[in-house]
Amino acid sequence: MCGTDGQVLVIKPSNPSSVSPAPDEPTDHRPSDTIINLDHGDPTMYESYWKVVGQKYTSITIPGFQSLSYFANKKNLCWFLEPKLEEEIKRLHKIVGNAIVENRHIVVGTGSSQLILAALYALSDPLNEPNPISVVSAAPYYSSYPETTDFLQSGLFKWSGDARCFNKEGPYIEMVTYPNNPDGVIREPVVNRADGKLIHDLAYYWPQYTAITSPADHDIILFTVSKCTGHAGSRIGWALVRNENIARKMVKFIEINTIGVSKEAQLRAANILETVSLSCQRHKPRDLENFFKCSQRLMAERWKKLREVVDNNKLFNIPKFPIQFCNFTRTSPKHILVITNASDVSFRQVPLSYDQKHFDHVYES
Amino acid sequence: MCGTDGQVLVIKPSNPSSVSPAPDEPTDHRPSDTIINLDHGDPTMYESYWKVVGQKYTSITIPGFQSLSYFANKKNLCWFLEPKLEEEIKRLHKIVGNAIVENRHIVVGTGSSQLILAALYALSDPLNEPNPISVVSAAPYYSSYPETTDFLQSGLFKWSGDARCFNKEGPYIEMVTYPNNPDGVIREPVVNRADGKLIHDLAYYWPQYTAITSPADHDIILFTVSKCTGHAGSRIGWALVRNENIARKMVKFIEINTIGVSKEAQLRAANILETVSLSCQRHKPRDLENFFKCSQRLMAERWKKLREVVDNNKLFNIPKFPIQFCNFTRTSPKHILVITNASDVSFRQVPLSYDQKHFDHVYES
Repeated sequence: MCGTDGQVLVIKPSNPSSVSPAPDEPTDHRPSDTIINLDHGDPTMYESYWKVVGQKYTSITIPGFQSLSYFANKKNLCWFLEPKLEEEIKRLHKIVGNAIVENRHIVVGTGSSQLILAALYALSDPLNEPNPISVVSAAPYYSSYPETTDFLQSGLFKWSGDARCFNKEGPYIEMVTYPNNPDGVIREPVVNRADGKLIHDLAYYWPQYTAITSPADHDIILFTVSKCTGHAGSRIGWALVRNENIARKMVKFIEINTIGVSKEAQLRAANILETVSLSCQRHKPRDLENFFKCSQRLMAERWKKLREVVDNNKLFNIPKFPIQFCNFTRTSPKHILVITNASDVSFRQVPLSYDQKHFDHVYES
Repeated sequence: MCGTDGQVLVIKPSNPSSVSPAPDEPTDHRPSDTIINLDHGDPTMYESYWKVVGQKYTSITIPGFQSLSYFANKKNLCWFLEPKLEEEIKRLHKIVGNAIVENRHIVVGTGSSQLILAALYALSDPLNEPNPISVVSAAPYYSSYPETTDFLQSGLFKWSGDARCFNKEGPYIEMVTYPNNPDGVIREPVVNRADGKLIHDLAYYWPQYTAITSPADHDIILFTVSKCTGHAGSRIGWALVRNENIARKMVKFIEINTIGVSKEAQLRAANILETVSLSCQRHKPRDLENFFKCSQRLMAERWKKLREVVDNNKLFNIPKFPIQFCNFTRTSPKHILVITNASDVSFRQVPLSYDQKHFDHVYES
């Protein structure tokens, strides 16, 4: 969840020289205002926007007799994808200009977590390798990648850590992210070998988080409504897939794993994306603010507060990013990266276990 | 999907001595009325009931600002389970009398497929065995079990076939079903060793399919709205779990696999189950027919037609079941089992591959 799963950042300004508690220390009585809980990363920051927009544009009503079937469109390669959601995904990408959708297969998933596994399965299963395929990503990477890859001890794929340290011969899969969670960097593939396959996880490639410089054009690209519109509870993600056989394999994975994706969640996501697209139109309704403009402002306000804390307590430093022109907003937003810089900031792991330090990238318009 | 996934049953009464076509035979020009497509098993038979019930009792409206969060109830072990769904699951089980819910943890899943994997993970991961745990079920078993178990080539568990032939030493997991899909038999565990773990898949243990003789009381029991109410498109299943640590592990699986379960689907499922419970009340609204009475009648009508075909063409035989008293309906329904009995009935596999013959069990009140 937001790449900060399982972590509690404990800031102890009153006693900077004290030792960090052990991860499983039973008696922790710090006052709550010294703890930033990174375990419960939850993208509810756009709730205020959706409340203002109100029921007029966003409510959906589903009668009891609707969507009983497993199938949404038997003629589609992705037979459980609601046609309305497919249409709205394509429309929004065209409006924002963040991904090419022409001649791409859309595979819907129960969040992008399921699509990561579906993509790993689709890329590794046909290879018939005797050993699991290595999966890598340049550090610092999304904290869930190792666990998602390894939790079932699959014979098809295996987490192999930092892409920059990867030197094993043979096929591999590299997770590429931009902007990268947790550090906000615009990434490119690192290993760059002919026997490598790429999965581009572009969850944050939306105008409220980064400059949209060109439409993404890769073999497998993953997106999710959790980060795009804040509807994490819906568990809807989608993949744009160039190759038909890879798309079929991903569909197969989701068929075996969950026999498709909730129709209710798809119908609602379609409705939400439709509203976002409508809000971006030049001749939009007066009572519908541009979603990305609003979400950009919300993010800026939140991080302005955090920046004040950062500036005041010297526990963090803020490196500078190159300023890029965003084709969607027609502006050049500044990016801020918050990195811990003090030994008295500890990461207490609850309840998940990761071996990676976490950061959060922010955006200021 | 209904245990008949990936199969087309081809009946060729005009030429009983001909050889069945190969699975991938490219030119198949049989008239459509000689093919029963078992690939697209889809429980839409209750759609007529839900249409009659109408929007008054079943529609839900979800505004755009609702359920943005990953969380449904942070205080619950299953933090993504909507409280309303938990409440309605418990209520319906108490009304029907088909499972004990007191002192059980409820884990919601994206259909029972995900819960099968979650249960396999929860039972096998803590064992730290050097080799995958054997997973078995007495044949004939649900056609998806082998693929669901093996598709990721997990190092934790491995499909080991018919429980009656299982003689390997060490821990194992047995899938137990009643009534069993595909043959309708009320099953009990077959291997019966101290180092075995059981998963009871009771998808069909509802009054329209079988007599409810006593509330199920096992360590892990799986149910799904797909079979209970026909809402397969929602992808909502649930597990009743006795042991807290096993429940936590199942939740962990779903957290890694899909970071929870769609809130929209849960809210709608809660609404549907609430309506079913209401329809079973003695003092129910006049315009709300008892769901199980109606669905029982629908099933009986459909299978009456099939029985006529069976009786006429001699391709099937119909064994007799012992008559059991149903505590819920207060009747003793007859069960019908349809089994293929002819060499000129072939199973053409499209597009999935299974090595098992399939049947379908039926119910006549």
